[in-house]
Amino acid sequence: MTNRPTSVEIEQATLLALDWGTTALRAALLDARGNVLHEHSSANGILSISSNGFASFFEANFSAWISHKGILCLISGMAGSQQGWVEAPYCPCPAGFGELATHLKWVEPGRIAIVPGLSCLRPGVPASLSLSQIPDVMRGEEVQVFGALRSLGCQEALVVLPGTHSKWVQVRDARIDSFQTCMTGELFALLRQHSILARTLPPSGGPDDGMLDETAFDEAVALAMVSPGLLSTAFSTRSLGLWKALSPAALLSHLSGLVIGEELRCQHLSHGTEVIVIGSAVLCLRYGRALQQLGMRVRCLGSEATWNGLFSIYKTIKP
Amino acid sequence: MTNRPTSVEIEQATLLALDWGTTALRAALLDARGNVLHEHSSANGILSISSNGFASFFEANFSAWISHKGILCLISGMAGSQQGWVEAPYCPCPAGFGELATHLKWVEPGRIAIVPGLSCLRPGVPASLSLSQIPDVMRGEEVQVFGALRSLGCQEALVVLPGTHSKWVQVRDARIDSFQTCMTGELFALLRQHSILARTLPPSGGPDDGMLDETAFDEAVALAMVSPGLLSTAFSTRSLGLWKALSPAALLSHLSGLVIGEELRCQHLSHGTEVIVIGSAVLCLRYGRALQQLGMRVRCLGSEATWNGLFSIYKTIKP
Repeated sequence: MTNRPTSVEIEQATLLALDWGTTALRAALLDARGNVLHEHSSANGILSISSNGFASFFEANFSAWISHKGILCLISGMAGSQQGWVEAPYCPCPAGFGELATHLKWVEPGRIAIVPGLSCLRPGVPASLSLSQIPDVMRGEEVQVFGALRSLGCQEALVVLPGTHSKWVQVRDARIDSFQTCMTGELFALLRQHSILARTLPPSGGPDDGMLDETAFDEAVALAMVSPGLLSTAFSTRSLGLWKALSPAALLSHLSGLVIGEELRCQHLSHGTEVIVIGSAVLCLRYGRALQQLGMRVRCLGSEATWNGLFSIYKTIKP
Repeated sequence: MTNRPTSVEIEQATLLALDWGTTALRAALLDARGNVLHEHSSANGILSISSNGFASFFEANFSAWISHKGILCLISGMAGSQQGWVEAPYCPCPAGFGELATHLKWVEPGRIAIVPGLSCLRPGVPASLSLSQIPDVMRGEEVQVFGALRSLGCQEALVVLPGTHSKWVQVRDARIDSFQTCMTGELFALLRQHSILARTLPPSGGPDDGMLDETAFDEAVALAMVSPGLLSTAFSTRSLGLWKALSPAALLSHLSGLVIGEELRCQHLSHGTEVIVIGSAVLCLRYGRALQQLGMRVRCLGSEATWNGLFSIYKTIKP
């Protein structure tokens, strides 16, 4: 990590925001109004740091960033997990800016703090099942959600953060009321790389990977919505390949549509619901397209949501 | 392959029945009443035979079995696929014993024939989607279904053949009316071996693999039935592991129950429906248990269904 802020940037800064995940680390220096002065990212996720190496890694790379008097560092993501720097216990839902700020885990009081993740009992699980007492969890996404609320100026929202483990988050009265994890991205990758379906799909990492065949994708979303579940639709990818009804690239869009469509089917969305999508441009495009096809209203945000979220928490503790 | 029938067995035989699948070959010599005289299995599935090596493999291993005058050989399974010995084109549903017998693909007239697989348009796919014209397919399972009908003496049935690609088969008037493929076994294996869930599960192939924690399994089936889909329940396996609510072995039963429960949920079964399960003892136990929990009546059959099925087709062409 050599990309460092200038002394002028450090002088103008009020907050160093870190999104420290499992496989990546993103950093941003923000001014008093929450604007990004300097940004940097690296592959130094928590898995790349030894369990007692977090403090020295931080000091070596970031002490200069917060050398100006009064700059605070707020960290979100897996850095607060058992495998991270210091464990910040999950905060139970419902939770808002206030609860996160109250439960900050101070690594160094007044200088470095970790934002806790959230836990939430699964709605709809009968009390007779032991799982009804076992919460779903997230770390990092909660900050993105609060950032999105700040950007969009809303207090009520349904937010999806698509990815390896997608999160569907219900916000009420500016607090996260409940959320649910869907293993959508991981399941897509498993089917795409390791299942029998892989035999008729284009090679992973090839040029077709990012391509979207819109017709194949849209049809697969429509199929997912009228089907009982992915178990019964996934094999259609093989049939379409065997009967040469779709090209390999279009088959990949078909599978993507089936999996994303299945995730949307599981949400039982009412027609006309507004859904806020926070994610990469590729995922925002696909989820936006699928949601609009189902009659939803969509707003998309990118990674800036994290900085807005950490800045909002900062403003809560230093109003 | 050295295990061969005796000359007395060959003299009593009327039919050599072969179930020639992708990775295994099973053979049985049957007498005039359909009883098994001699049985043998090996790993000589079609993938182990070169594309022009089927005839010589057959003659080297089975010509002695059918050396007695008038013994016929009927073959079911992937030997009739494009990658097999001789392609036996799919027979469209509805189809019964009669249609299969009419469409036998004779490798050597009067001596060796391959039973065709079945194809079936997917029910419930809107005509506006191109997939509505692309059939689902099976090879080999149709013979097991007809064998089960013969054993049980029934003309109407709902049959499930659990496995890597489970088949749900609807029989009406002694004919296969429609069927559907579920990628249940394959999806379980992917989640169990390659997903993040694998981290808290016992090692694959270990002693816990065959063990069933009945409470964990039953609870997971119940959870699957009240959930919108596997995408939203699968992550519970990780939560239960993280919170140490279940042992690793019980977690495996939980995942098994989630996946099998999801397959059953997708079938929209009416309470009290009779379901015939054809499969291994392990799968019959799990599917039987899950189906009974949901109020279904269950009958289980093992691999003998194949021999009954091939014998029934034999009796149709040589009454």
